[in-house]
Parts: sequence; C-alpha cells; structure tokens
Amino acid sequence: MFETAEVGHRIDKETYAAEVPGLRTALLDAQFDLSQSRKFPVVLVIGGVDGAGKGETVNLLTEWMDPRHIQVHGFGPPSDEEAQRPAMWRFWRALPPSGKLGIFFGSWYTEPILERVAGAEGERTFDHAIERINHFERMLADEGALVLKFWFHLSKKAQKKRLEKLESDPKTQWRVTKADWKNFKRYDAFRDVSARMVRETNLAHAPWIVVEGEDARYRSLTVGKTLLAALRARLDAPGAAAGATAPAPVPAIDHRTVLDQIDLATRLPREAYAARLEALQGRLALLTRSARFAKTGVIAVFEGWDAAGKGGAIRRITGALDARRYEIIPIAAPTEEERRQPYLWRFWRGLPPRGRVTVFDRSWYGRVLVERVEGFCSQDDWLRAYGEINDFEEQLVENKTIVCKFWLHVSKDEQLRRFEERKQAEFKRFKITDEDWRNRGKWDAYVQAVCDMVDRTSTELAPWTLVAAEDKLVARIQVLETLCGRLEGAL
Amino acid sequence: MFETAEVGHRIDKETYAAEVPGLRTALLDAQFDLSQSRKFPVVLVIGGVDGAGKGETVNLLTEWMDPRHIQVHGFGPPSDEEAQRPAMWRFWRALPPSGKLGIFFGSWYTEPILERVAGAEGERTFDHAIERINHFERMLADEGALVLKFWFHLSKKAQKKRLEKLESDPKTQWRVTKADWKNFKRYDAFRDVSARMVRETNLAHAPWIVVEGEDARYRSLTVGKTLLAALRARLDAPGAAAGATAPAPVPAIDHRTVLDQIDLATRLPREAYAARLEALQGRLALLTRSARFAKTGVIAVFEGWDAAGKGGAIRRITGALDARRYEIIPIAAPTEEERRQPYLWRFWRGLPPRGRVTVFDRSWYGRVLVERVEGFCSQDDWLRAYGEINDFEEQLVENKTIVCKFWLHVSKDEQLRRFEERKQAEFKRFKITDEDWRNRGKWDAYVQAVCDMVDRTSTELAPWTLVAAEDKLVARIQVLETLCGRLEGAL
Repeated sequence: MFETAEVGHRIDKETYAAEVPGLRTALLDAQFDLSQSRKFPVVLVIGGVDGAGKGETVNLLTEWMDPRHIQVHGFGPPSDEEAQRPAMWRFWRALPPSGKLGIFFGSWYTEPILERVAGAEGERTFDHAIERINHFERMLADEGALVLKFWFHLSKKAQKKRLEKLESDPKTQWRVTKADWKNFKRYDAFRDVSARMVRETNLAHAPWIVVEGEDARYRSLTVGKTLLAALRARLDAPGAAAGATAPAPVPAIDHRTVLDQIDLATRLPREAYAARLEALQGRLALLTRSARFAKTGVIAVFEGWDAAGKGGAIRRITGALDARRYEIIPIAAPTEEERRQPYLWRFWRGLPPRGRVTVFDRSWYGRVLVERVEGFCSQDDWLRAYGEINDFEEQLVENKTIVCKFWLHVSKDEQLRRFEERKQAEFKRFKITDEDWRNRGKWDAYVQAVCDMVDRTSTELAPWTLVAAEDKLVARIQVLETLCGRLEGAL
Repeated sequence: MFETAEVGHRIDKETYAAEVPGLRTALLDAQFDLSQSRKFPVVLVIGGVDGAGKGETVNLLTEWMDPRHIQVHGFGPPSDEEAQRPAMWRFWRALPPSGKLGIFFGSWYTEPILERVAGAEGERTFDHAIERINHFERMLADEGALVLKFWFHLSKKAQKKRLEKLESDPKTQWRVTKADWKNFKRYDAFRDVSARMVRETNLAHAPWIVVEGEDARYRSLTVGKTLLAALRARLDAPGAAAGATAPAPVPAIDHRTVLDQIDLATRLPREAYAARLEALQGRLALLTRSARFAKTGVIAVFEGWDAAGKGGAIRRITGALDARRYEIIPIAAPTEEERRQPYLWRFWRGLPPRGRVTVFDRSWYGRVLVERVEGFCSQDDWLRAYGEINDFEEQLVENKTIVCKFWLHVSKDEQLRRFEERKQAEFKRFKITDEDWRNRGKWDAYVQAVCDMVDRTSTELAPWTLVAAEDKLVARIQVLETLCGRLEGAL
C-alpha cells in the first residue's frame, strides 16, 4: 500500500520556487469560484503517520488560500454533549456548507484505527467501522460533496531518523515525548491496520492520496496540485456528479399491499378507550421516569395520510410526559442553512441527548414520500435514501435510542369525510389547504411510496408500526401500546 | 411583594369547567396566528417556590396549546461546552425563533437567586446579575420578543402543609426528600432574595406575574388568561412595539474627529517590516501555545474602510497560528434562521470554546456602521446597539476572553488608488463591486458612524485600536503589536 511513498520523492528549491506562485493564484481562483457559486462543499481528510507533515500542510493550505472560507477541525476527546449522541454526530455538526472547504485533521478514521492498533477492539468492530465510513462518504459524494483524503506516510527508518534528529537538538528536544517513542514501537501494527483501512475505503468518489511526508516541498506541491485539479474538474463540470442509477421498485403485480392488510373496521367505545388510555399513559409516565430511561431515549416518528390524526396521537403521548423530557420537532421545508448541507443533516442536528422522548411530526421519510412523489428530488436521490436512512437509524439504535416509527393509515373515504368536517370546524388551525387536496389526488402514488418505504426500511432494529387510524381512538391506543411495549422490552 | 399571593385565591370546579374550553380555543387560535405570521417569539419564564405548581402549569400549557410550537427548556448543571462560554450562552442558544413559544423552566434567574440565598455570592454580584438580566430582557423586548414571567408563590404555612401532607401519604412519601426540608428551612431567605429580584426585574417590557400556587384551578386560569391577553394584544397591535427613542449623537461641532488624529504619514521599509513581522509572529506563536492561553482566548474584530487591508492583516495573524487553534468568521448577510432571532444571536452562536483565536472579518459593529448608514435598521435599533454590544463584550471579557477591536483607517485618496489598482489586478477575488463604490459615496456618513462607534464602545475592557492603514506594512505591524501586547498583559 505505502511502497510508493517510500521512494524518496524530493523537489529541489528552484523548482518549488518556480511552481508555487502560479499554484497559489490558481488555488485562490478556484476557491473564489467555489465560494461565489456555492456549487458544492469540499471535505478534506488528513490522516497518516505522526511527523509526516500533516499539521504543516494544513497550515500551508490556509496560508495559500483564503482562510475565511476554510474551516479546520481537530478532534480531541468528545465533549459531554457529543458523548450523548452517536459517534458520528460530531462530524456531522462540523460538515462544511456548500462553497466552503472543511479540513478534518483527525476524523472518523482516527478512533477505529487507534482502537484496532491498541487491540481495544476486534476485527468485527473494525469491519463495521469500515462499512460505516464507506456509507458515510458515499452519502457525502452523492449529496454533491467533493471528498478528498490525504494520507501522509513516513517509512519506519525515516520516522526513527526524525525522532532522533529532534532529540539531538536542544532547541527541539522538548517536542519528543515518551508517547512518541511508544507510538514508534507500534509502527508496524499501525502501518498494517492503516493499510487495510486505506485500501478498503479508497473509492472513486472518496479517494485516498498517499503522500510521502519526508520532503516538505514534495509533499506541499503534491497536495496543492491534487486539490487544485480536483477543485477545477468539479467546478468546470457542466452539471452535478451523476450518482449510480439503481432500478426503481416495481409495484406488486397482484396489487396487494401491506396497507390492505390493515384492519380498518375495528372500533373502540369511548368509555373503554378512556380507561385504556389512562392505564397506558400511567405506564408510559412511569417508564420514562425510571432511572434506566435516563441512559437511553426514544425517537418516535409519525408519518401518515393528511388528517389521519398524527397530532392527536402525539398529544396522547406527550400528555403522559413531563414537558422537560420531550420535544416535538415538526418538519417543514428545510431552511437556507439546511439546504446547503446533505439531506439528513437537519435531522442529525436536532438529535437530543439521552433521557428524552423526541417526536418527529413527519421526518426524514419525507425523502421517500413527498419528495419522491412530487419529484422534488431525483430518482437516484430517493433510491439511495433507503440505505442512508437505515444507516442513520442503526446509529441511533447503537446509541441506545429506541426508534418507533408509525404510519397512520385511513381509507380514502374516511380522509374525505375528515376534510369535509374540518371545513366546517371553527378552529382556524384545522384549515384544509390546497396542498392537502393535491396530495389526495396522488393517493395511488403515495400508496406505492409507502409500501416501498415499509419494505425497505422496516428493519429489526427500527420496525414500522402500521396503525389502523380509521378510528382515532383505536389508533391512539395502538400507538401508546406499541411505545410502552418497546420501552418495556428495552429497559 | 408576595402578599397578594397569600390571600387564599380559589376557583371552584364549576367555574373552572365553564371557563376552560373557551380559553383553550382562544389560546390555540392565538398560537396559530403566531406560528403563521411569525410576528414575534414568546419567551415565558417560570420561577418560584418549590411545590407551587410550576411543573404542573408547564405541562398544562403544552396540553392546552399545540406542543409542536412550544419548546420547553429545563436547565441542569451546564454541559462542558456551555461551561467554556459566558454564562448566558446556554440561554441564547435556547431562544425561540419568531413564531414559537419558548418556556424557560429554570432560567437566568435560578443561579443568582440560589447563590445569594446560599451566601456563596455577595450583594455586589447579585446587583450585577440583576443588571445583566435587565439588559438581556430589555434587548429581547426591543428585538420584538414578548417576554412574560410567572412567579409561583406559596406562603410558608402552605409550603409546610404541603410537605407534611405528601409525607403522610405512603403513596407520595417518596416525593419529599431531605433536600426539601433543608430548602424549607431557608424559606425566609429565599423569599427575601426572590422578592428583591422580582421587584428589580419587574419592568413594563418584561413583567412578573406573581401567582398564588396553592389552588391548581386558580393558578391555571390565571396563567392561561394572562398569556392569552398578552398574546392577543401583541398579535392584534398594528405594528412592532415602539422602543424608547434616544437622541441621536450630534457630530462634533468643530468637525475634528478621532480619525483625523491618526498619523497616516508613517511608512515602513520592506526590510525593516520583514524583520519585525518575523519577530512578532514568533512572539504570537509562543503566546498562543502557552498553557495559560488554553484557559483563555482571543476574539479579534476587524472593521475598516473597503480596501483598507483587513484580509492582509488577518493573514499575518493566522500565519503565526496553528490552523486548529483559530477560526475566521466572515460576516455576510444573516441567514433566514438568524433573521428570526435577536440581532446578536448569530454572534453568540459562533462563540468558540477557550484556547482559540477567533477573528471576525466584520462583526456585530455592522449594526452601527453599515446598517445605520444604509438605513437597514431603525435609529432606535442602532442607538440601543451600543449598550447591547458593550454588554456582550463585557460578558466575553468576564469569560476570560481578550477582545481586540481594530478599525483600519485609510484616506479617501488612498482608497481610490487601491480601487483603481484592484481593477487592473488579475485575481478575480479583487473584484471591486458596485457596493464598494456606493459605500465610498457615503464617506462622510461613515466617518460620523465610526466616530460615534469609537466614542460609545471603546471601553476599558474592550478598547478600539485605530490602525494607520495608509501603509499596509505599518498597519500589519500595529495590529500584531497590539495583539501581542494585549496577550502579554493578560497572561
């Protein structure tokens, strides 16, 4: 893997001096075009061996280019706010918006490699980390980010020479610590683990560029020119990068769907409902006040037909909770800041700390529902969203969050009845909008989208609950029962 | 203060049952109008005696109203990210955007009162806290927020009765802890400190409503009706709330200004410059790598005429720094999310943790410069900004941040020369925009704005440095020298 970076690459002073001014101008130019057009964000990952010039290179890039449009992130131990969320949260919150360059000096690679080298984690965890990284970078690239990764390498001999040289000079002696020599002893293990990581995450949409780190001039020109070429190519490309085209799902050929299986005939008398509601709310209240709940959390996702009763069902949940322990996040159109980031960014952004119930009134499933049906995103976008969403929810579950997803189902007739009823209602908040009628007109397309969604995202970690919402009382009881059951199972 | 809340207020069951449905409908209606119009945010502070129904009332409000547009915040001990910033940071980040209702259950009142009661802080600190709160709420109100504060009171007798009643019932026994009785012993001290706090922060734009907490029906109706009346009044008011009109500053009658005092004739030969630059950058590099620096931080603000050389001066600072230790925040027009918040919100939002150099390329002073001159905000807005800014910077300094503010000054002739030079330059990034020429046309108005700014915001805690930028080299040295001097003085 790293052989090509042990050949003694070298650039002489004159060549360097002749090349740099033109390179700087071109980099500044490209950066200017990027920040003006806001065409895409640049994610630059810096990894490699200690002493191979990582820090120097980052400093040089910020000197050559306009530092106002560069964000440099070093990552130390996670803060307590970060420790409460999935491990990738800190990287999501640091992603650069379109038009900016984000340098990740220390990144999602650091921990998996160091833990594997130290033997703290086994092969399976390492494999899982590689898979997660590949999903993440695939998503970044699909969302339009330019992802470039530089690996700075030093041979074992060069690494040793460097440490000895620093130690022999009284002025630089202090830079060599015991930890440096301890790391050096692990050189072989670090190289082997890194080589595998670099190999398995070296993909066309997020390539590694291995740079020999010994000669500063060689390494600076290599990084500068590589970055420039990649920037220029993407800036001058006519359109967005084309994603992989997957085949669209085909509707069931016998027209039977999971939605047809839902029994919409059940009714619940109001008295029986009141008794069961009280009991369930009591159960939920106790569960969410338990000591163990403080170490976990619930994310409840509500999707469903317009007028299916999402709001009412949500209020029956929150009615059982202390107002400080829950949050309802109503999902509307993304803001300007959110539109400059990958699709899932705005949901990552709102992730709660542990010990909370977070209710999403509509959710990330908008991508495979309204955005798919209305054509707000491309077919490639919603097709890859299934995998991205499963990956997202897997990370939530690994972070000890219970993910409950509800689809509230009503018949087309019942929806019409409720629309008419709302037209008569005195409360303004029940206004029926043109959009509601438009959505209704696309009923069949939505049925198809819902079935595909359930098919592809109802996982053992985060299953969908299809709720019979023809009778609102039945629906509310089913929602509360599911929630209590999932909580009892997990606590 | 609290006598009116010890009179035994009581509402009977029938009256309550008759009133509630209408009240709920009206509250929902008002909330709907608020969320549609996004006319203003509502900041609801809940304070008072334990056991007086604070939690119950918050839960009831979220039940009565649409919980999707309510954000409830409880505040425990600060997270480590919060502990690195000024104490008010956690409240700023929790402010509701326009159209939403934020309930602060536990707020900026909690800590000052408890620390004073415990005797941990003296009278002066308490006075300072009161002043800070009044500034903060004045700012909220001036920015258009509806600020309402409810204080829930129980007489000492009622408090004792409540604790004894809970203890006597095996089912509720667990709710009474030793801490509750300990708090009860401090009842008198708590009442006295609170009474003073409530009195001194009870202002027309952010009133306290003291609510007797013993009877649940009385207290619920009181809070609901008060909130409704306040919401309705603001929603139905024709325009924004009028702020207090302060007199505008008058230009110096002899036309002499601080800017005229700057010696623009000094020049620095390039060789002398290079030597001094290197020495200063070395000093800065050492200072920012010291252990003591990790516990403090620098915020450097750059303002100045177009083409005065802000970018070049900033790069001479960052050239001395490790890229992981600084951040440059270029200030452009606020985003949609930022426009739904008070003016200073976007600057609070970007505040770094300790141990960083943060450079603002333009800053919050936009309010009293471009926004004033161009009429982007009202005279009241920019007049009150001086005080708001001083208050903001005072909090930064109290959080051990060194605040350096630079105004880069050039003559009108020199600016013209640089504009012409830039027109010839090959780099696109030096494009001169129409806006630059427009700003130039308003030179005199800007001179007045700059003089007023220096006059009103050059404080002993955060002084302005007026930089002679006619010669760029002179300017860079002055900036670096100031920065090093301030750092050396502080560390």
